[in-house]
Amino acid sequence: MSGADGFGQRFAGEATEIPPLVRPPQPAAQAATQPAANAVDRAEHGLPLQFRTTTADPTTVDPTPADLAIAESGAVEAATELDGSAEVVLGPTGRPMPVLPEPRPVSTHGQARVISMCNQKGGVGKTTTTINLGASLAEYGRKVLLVDFDPQGSLSVGLGLNPHQMDLTIYNLLMQRDVTLEDVVVPSGVPGMDLLPSNIDLSAAEVQLVHEVAREQTLQRVLAPAIGQYDVILIDCQPSLGLLTVNALTASDGVIVPLECEYFALRGVALLKTTIDKVQERLNPRLRVDGVLGTMYDGRTLHSREVMSRLVEAWGDTVFHTVIRRTIKFSDSTVAGEPITSYASASAGAESYRQLAKEVLARCLDA
Amino acid sequence: MSGADGFGQRFAGEATEIPPLVRPPQPAAQAATQPAANAVDRAEHGLPLQFRTTTADPTTVDPTPADLAIAESGAVEAATELDGSAEVVLGPTGRPMPVLPEPRPVSTHGQARVISMCNQKGGVGKTTTTINLGASLAEYGRKVLLVDFDPQGSLSVGLGLNPHQMDLTIYNLLMQRDVTLEDVVVPSGVPGMDLLPSNIDLSAAEVQLVHEVAREQTLQRVLAPAIGQYDVILIDCQPSLGLLTVNALTASDGVIVPLECEYFALRGVALLKTTIDKVQERLNPRLRVDGVLGTMYDGRTLHSREVMSRLVEAWGDTVFHTVIRRTIKFSDSTVAGEPITSYASASAGAESYRQLAKEVLARCLDA
Repeated sequence: MSGADGFGQRFAGEATEIPPLVRPPQPAAQAATQPAANAVDRAEHGLPLQFRTTTADPTTVDPTPADLAIAESGAVEAATELDGSAEVVLGPTGRPMPVLPEPRPVSTHGQARVISMCNQKGGVGKTTTTINLGASLAEYGRKVLLVDFDPQGSLSVGLGLNPHQMDLTIYNLLMQRDVTLEDVVVPSGVPGMDLLPSNIDLSAAEVQLVHEVAREQTLQRVLAPAIGQYDVILIDCQPSLGLLTVNALTASDGVIVPLECEYFALRGVALLKTTIDKVQERLNPRLRVDGVLGTMYDGRTLHSREVMSRLVEAWGDTVFHTVIRRTIKFSDSTVAGEPITSYASASAGAESYRQLAKEVLARCLDA
Repeated sequence: MSGADGFGQRFAGEATEIPPLVRPPQPAAQAATQPAANAVDRAEHGLPLQFRTTTADPTTVDPTPADLAIAESGAVEAATELDGSAEVVLGPTGRPMPVLPEPRPVSTHGQARVISMCNQKGGVGKTTTTINLGASLAEYGRKVLLVDFDPQGSLSVGLGLNPHQMDLTIYNLLMQRDVTLEDVVVPSGVPGMDLLPSNIDLSAAEVQLVHEVAREQTLQRVLAPAIGQYDVILIDCQPSLGLLTVNALTASDGVIVPLECEYFALRGVALLKTTIDKVQERLNPRLRVDGVLGTMYDGRTLHSREVMSRLVEAWGDTVFHTVIRRTIKFSDSTVAGEPITSYASASAGAESYRQLAKEVLARCLDA
């Protein structure tokens, strides 16, 4: 069992078929091999934190294009672990927080980047992230199309649509040649953001596509006319690695992986990476992982921080600096049928998603 | 658009590819063509109830083998709508309640009937039904194997298992030739009931099985050794119609469809029936629908009763007389990690599932 966290072959072309068993780290064994990094915190909890030494020592930081600027001031999420060197403010991911540039204004639209929100585990925040990242990007002036690609239709319901009253959904767009994108797109209620809705009909597509020619490219084909009209297209995937998700990945330029800050979550993500690698290799060479987003983060628990540090170990700067905290309440905004960025515009939740939008813009839209 | 409820081709070999749009019934138009059945209730609500005339008039009842005995006494769920003829007590499905025979004692085990709990809509009560029907059948002396066939692992968690601490799951049984059924089966905590657990690893099977020979028969193959040891095997399916569900249907003798008592639910079930028909035709000729189970039923609302009457119109006596009421609280028993039949043995929820077990025994196990 090489790579206890299942990320041993992170960027290898063909990852292991059988996902390795992920176990929580063994504190005793690790403590023996760990130097004095994060000594204060470790002393407090009697357990090691595994921040990379590169982040613990600012003189050895190796900035990537995503870390556009590093500064102690302006960090939105200031960490409490300062680790001796008082100059650097660590974010919740254990890395120095970059100052994210203000998004540049845009006057023309088009050449959309297609990004799938993908994790085969349910309840990790895919739909919430799709709605609120989309709404934040729209606030920054981008034209956004959300694609509900889950037959459970949570994204559509989350934007106030009634599943009883949809005449046409993405199912019709996929399966009926005479239905066009314009027939199915509806406004989302957020200026600049549209929606391709879905309901349980989409579960039929999974069955019917099996016998189609180019069954993996169907979504890509029907989304093609939207590329010229929008700046970003966000696809909310089904919590499964079946044919619908493979369609979403084939249609995408990037993947964002929302990930619950919990040990067990790492296990599923190793497998998701295998699937992404396969789609990239066989169907869509331009596909890349745009980012891994820690959700349900609770900075007060050692557990959350350890998971985050293992995530950073495994995925490096692919992990977004922004995290979505467990304490943020989204249930009210779901009932309201609108994003938290408009329902509770000044809330911490809204602010987190605006910060995520800035990171996404800096990393892969304005880059 | 023939068959407004999508059940027009109920027993036709090849149902329509595109699920017809289901709309709530048009009260005004129907009221004009409906005779005086359920007049009291209709007068009360100003809307028609559509009980079949066969159920409204006991002299024309056409009993099926499942309706083993019809009597006013002994009905567990007595309806309030008596419809003029005082002799017949209608159950919540609008049909006379049969007296279900006490399950016969068994001394030997084996020749298990394999039954899939199937609905591609999530949150309709598949897992709750699997756990509690299984526990009730075990109470009646049957040897029961539950199969968690959903990568989200809710059935395993619902029986108190920790997804972090599973060494082997059904994923290993499916994908590794050297892993046997005995290696993976664990006791469920309920005497006479075992479990094949699952966790997120199973999502890998969906990807990996695509390239296997006889990919639809993999579950059937690995369950074969269990047939001789158990009386009933209940498979909790994933809420999707993908390859895992097709595997479950191919391995099954029967399907139970838990169905939320809501108009929109009918739409998904038309499509599920198409899938069942296809599997029956191409992969598994012995497959039949053992029953449709109304869940989240609220007898106080016209809506629930109308949906139930449309269900009976479409599926006839395939609909179980037992319904699972919305008012039943299962959350406590989920936290307890055991079935409601043991956690709250005397509760209405436990009683409903014992009644369902009697119906299942009479209909397809002891028949």
